[in-house]
Amino acid sequence: MQILDLLFGKPLANSEERGEQVGPSAGLPIFGLDALSSAAYGPEAALTLLIPLGLAGVHLIVPISTAIIILLVIVYFSYRQTIEAYPHGGGSYTVATENLGDGAGLLAASALMIDYILTAAVGISAGVGALVSAVPALQSHLLGLCLLILLILTLVNMRGVRDTGVAFLIPTYLFLGTLLIVIGWGLVRVVTGGGHPVPVVAPPHLPPATEMIGLWLLLKVFASGCTAMTGVEAVSNGVMAFRQPTTKNAKFTLTIIIALLIVLLAGIALLCRFYGIGATDPSGAGYQSVLSQLIGAVMGRGWFYYLTIASILLVLSLSANTAFADFPRLTKAIAFHDYLPHVFTLRGRRLLHSHGIYALVFFTAVLLILFGGVTDRLIPLYAIGAFLAFTLSQAGMVVHWRKNKGPGSTVRMVVNGIGAVATGSTLLVVLVAKFVAGAWVTALLVPLLIFTMTRVRRHYERVNRETANAQPLRVENIKPPVVIIPLDRWSRITEKGLRFALSMSPEIIAVHVDTEDNSMSICDDWDHMIAGPLKAANLPVPQLVNLKSPYRFILAPVVDFVLNKELELENRQIAVLVPELVVKHWWENLLHNQRANVLKLLLLLKGNQRILVINIPWYLQRP
Amino acid sequence: MQILDLLFGKPLANSEERGEQVGPSAGLPIFGLDALSSAAYGPEAALTLLIPLGLAGVHLIVPISTAIIILLVIVYFSYRQTIEAYPHGGGSYTVATENLGDGAGLLAASALMIDYILTAAVGISAGVGALVSAVPALQSHLLGLCLLILLILTLVNMRGVRDTGVAFLIPTYLFLGTLLIVIGWGLVRVVTGGGHPVPVVAPPHLPPATEMIGLWLLLKVFASGCTAMTGVEAVSNGVMAFRQPTTKNAKFTLTIIIALLIVLLAGIALLCRFYGIGATDPSGAGYQSVLSQLIGAVMGRGWFYYLTIASILLVLSLSANTAFADFPRLTKAIAFHDYLPHVFTLRGRRLLHSHGIYALVFFTAVLLILFGGVTDRLIPLYAIGAFLAFTLSQAGMVVHWRKNKGPGSTVRMVVNGIGAVATGSTLLVVLVAKFVAGAWVTALLVPLLIFTMTRVRRHYERVNRETANAQPLRVENIKPPVVIIPLDRWSRITEKGLRFALSMSPEIIAVHVDTEDNSMSICDDWDHMIAGPLKAANLPVPQLVNLKSPYRFILAPVVDFVLNKELELENRQIAVLVPELVVKHWWENLLHNQRANVLKLLLLLKGNQRILVINIPWYLQRP
Repeated sequence: MQILDLLFGKPLANSEERGEQVGPSAGLPIFGLDALSSAAYGPEAALTLLIPLGLAGVHLIVPISTAIIILLVIVYFSYRQTIEAYPHGGGSYTVATENLGDGAGLLAASALMIDYILTAAVGISAGVGALVSAVPALQSHLLGLCLLILLILTLVNMRGVRDTGVAFLIPTYLFLGTLLIVIGWGLVRVVTGGGHPVPVVAPPHLPPATEMIGLWLLLKVFASGCTAMTGVEAVSNGVMAFRQPTTKNAKFTLTIIIALLIVLLAGIALLCRFYGIGATDPSGAGYQSVLSQLIGAVMGRGWFYYLTIASILLVLSLSANTAFADFPRLTKAIAFHDYLPHVFTLRGRRLLHSHGIYALVFFTAVLLILFGGVTDRLIPLYAIGAFLAFTLSQAGMVVHWRKNKGPGSTVRMVVNGIGAVATGSTLLVVLVAKFVAGAWVTALLVPLLIFTMTRVRRHYERVNRETANAQPLRVENIKPPVVIIPLDRWSRITEKGLRFALSMSPEIIAVHVDTEDNSMSICDDWDHMIAGPLKAANLPVPQLVNLKSPYRFILAPVVDFVLNKELELENRQIAVLVPELVVKHWWENLLHNQRANVLKLLLLLKGNQRILVINIPWYLQRP
Repeated sequence: MQILDLLFGKPLANSEERGEQVGPSAGLPIFGLDALSSAAYGPEAALTLLIPLGLAGVHLIVPISTAIIILLVIVYFSYRQTIEAYPHGGGSYTVATENLGDGAGLLAASALMIDYILTAAVGISAGVGALVSAVPALQSHLLGLCLLILLILTLVNMRGVRDTGVAFLIPTYLFLGTLLIVIGWGLVRVVTGGGHPVPVVAPPHLPPATEMIGLWLLLKVFASGCTAMTGVEAVSNGVMAFRQPTTKNAKFTLTIIIALLIVLLAGIALLCRFYGIGATDPSGAGYQSVLSQLIGAVMGRGWFYYLTIASILLVLSLSANTAFADFPRLTKAIAFHDYLPHVFTLRGRRLLHSHGIYALVFFTAVLLILFGGVTDRLIPLYAIGAFLAFTLSQAGMVVHWRKNKGPGSTVRMVVNGIGAVATGSTLLVVLVAKFVAGAWVTALLVPLLIFTMTRVRRHYERVNRETANAQPLRVENIKPPVVIIPLDRWSRITEKGLRFALSMSPEIIAVHVDTEDNSMSICDDWDHMIAGPLKAANLPVPQLVNLKSPYRFILAPVVDFVLNKELELENRQIAVLVPELVVKHWWENLLHNQRANVLKLLLLLKGNQRILVINIPWYLQRP
């Protein structure tokens, strides 16, 4: 237990629950890391598609970012309303289930589970990818580093929510602080420069335009830019992790996250526009990320540049943590509806739903190993889950407002409707554009997950149907079982078993298997050791059955005998007594046959409702 | 079962035992293969050491072979006497134990076990080595081929003794037939050639002498030549495998084997002498085995040459089979004295001591893998075990004759004494000459094995001491146990458990663990579902104990409660009822916690003589 304590902290009692809950300042790194780190790749993804438009593309980033920000605001209001309507934590899964029915709920559940696993995998691989670009010597250890970071995240998260917050506080605030300084100082220089600031380090020249603006291109740009929105769902899913007043704290945290994300997206878009910064070809030799160009243009390449870049790298790899915070809560909610194994509802020693963490770590590790820890291969699978969940959540909220009519509900329904249509069409665009590249994996996994969850639910329903008991205890016809006890030879173990059998029933059948190989047999000692004393004490003498076993099988004759006896004696319970020798050292087990264990297992597998097994252990003393 | 039947044959009843026993013609391949195949490397090993003496060395092979044959005759008479004195099968182990005491017996046991494992490993690797020399393309699959042959031998042997005899009959008789024809025809040509036969294919010229004859050299040559004697022990160890009259058949088989071996050794020595055939440098480029030269000189290089060579290769690799026939019998004899796990005394489905075969296969595979399947690396470990066993056996027989005085016993004692001294000094020579090359491994393994066997014996003695029961059944003070039943909520499973508890004891304690996480609790239903009906029926109402578990542990509080109860209630038995859900498909287990199994295990590990576990299974119906 001491090693566990050291690694994961001491066990926490239920009464310590409150202490494990967080306020907005600690909630921001936990639930906001994923959303905020999206700013590091969302604008870049949009600008990359705008490269063929040249300078016109860079000018287009402002209206496109505005559109994304408007969508973000719509989604923000939607989730604000969700937090209020579902104060016990309701992400897309809950909203979709309650408003659109179980089918939509399962769809949302599958989408979210896949999304969270990909969040973890992509976050880790992106972080490691950045690290490896900086230190090329580590290139050959890509996958190993990914799994190492996964291990560190697991250990940190197993300690519990509060400790996690502390671990991620500093990198998140460093990331936000440095980036906000860059944006602020950059905008000051835009104003003082009369709209034409001079870059400290000039960005690469923009290529000439090779294409014209088209609607399909704009939709694709918009869709790519929307990856900046992944992770927004997190707060509404984890409302319960906030301290009292829960709803208020959660909404406040969501507001701050969205506001910061808007500032980041708007700031990046404006700076790109005024400094003339576009994306460079990601597969080209002179590749430089948009943020790197931007920081260089505003601040130059001093220590501040490296500090900012380092914080971006760190936050990217830590964004995986959002999945650790939310995946276990999601699986708990699904398991609560009987669609996943019930272990996901149990809280472990540190008040976490530990099994959710195990599952997340397992599937993330599988993904990382399958895709070799390379981000580019994982990205096409990503985003689909997130936008499917967005769409279902907002469609659910539309239904919610229709059901719960009140002042302003029509306006809210329209807002959610617009959101649903926007995210829904984004989803379609992403699905079509990335289908061949890997989105098909997700499209295949979703129905598979739904099928599995349906089967799980059906099983639990069957168990409940079969074991539920609306009647009080039946007290009639309680009588002792027929006891069957397999014996080999007379020993203290045999005596203990027989004495117990005598204590519970007057009907005892002693069974001896005769393989013709045994030298000593209970049959030789039966009369003077067992039957005699019992007769003398006027106690019932057990029936002795000698089973011939010419093929030297020991257990099969006993099991057959028990099964036949069960058929023969209707409405009686059969208790099989299994005496067992318990040794003190594991290696001593090699010196004894494991017949007791195999017999117990065989009786369990071949038995039925009326057969039960009583294990009489005999403990060897320490020498 | 059908796959088992196909691979290993159908199970054999005890009554089919006689049919599984063999006569001399089938016994020869089984017990003689190892001894007879030694003729293929014994003379060669001696001649290799005689190379530095040139032609003088070739002349020396006749007196040295004579000495070995004399030793062989001595050993033959010794084992003949052993078979008579120990008709139930007594190899060196039995003879040493009965005459020299347990210590010497264990020494012989270790020596023999190591020897048999090496017989298998060396036989297989020598055969594969020869095959690989003939087909160099297989060189890279050396170890794989070794393990494949080991697998084939295992399958063949798992079918049982008689089937094994059939499988090895043809190769053995082919080997003997071809080699005897070569020797016979060769000697005819010696006689017709007036002592100077003309070789059909001339052997390589003998090198000039570079050394003088010395005593140490002669001893080493003698020791090497004695490897021709390995395997002679087999018959005496396996007397019981012969059909009635057992002793007579065994002695006759031993006589034939020794006679054939003498003919082979004498014939090879004489032909070498008269055809002027010496060994060639084993590591040199022009290497050719002595037998190959000899067959070429007598018969030429026609189809008969290749047939003979092929039969030699086959028999060499099959000689490993002697180990399969004898190792299980040896371990059975040792286990019978409690020095090895008792499983070795059990006969499997085909009347074999299957576990001995498993152990042999396992250790042979380990040896082959460790030494890469290369014969040269295994050879230095070999022979020591065999000669240690010879020495102990013959020393034991000396004591035997001293104890059992009678007509001729003094002569016999002297014969055995000479044998003991001769094999003993051979043992010393081998040990000294090969110590650094690998004999140290054997020298290290022997005490390790003896230590292990002593520990095993001590364990069995302790178990017998603790469980042996010379008293008849105590009939006083038989009273029902206190029943403890852990319950979570009211269900048909709970009802079944409670009804069983009521059937066996009036003292029942129902234990409920309250983790504050459960929604439904038995406590809510207790009065109207359980206590009420029992009171109405005038039956005892169980005591309900509610265990608070703020850290959400479920099993620890139950186990602690049971252990405390045991301390509290002196001289009472505590029966813990564990209700368990049994599912129909393995994957359904993933949907249910395995608490019942873990609780059973914990109670077994932490429990004591007065605590026992009753497993009440609840079977789900098929859907």
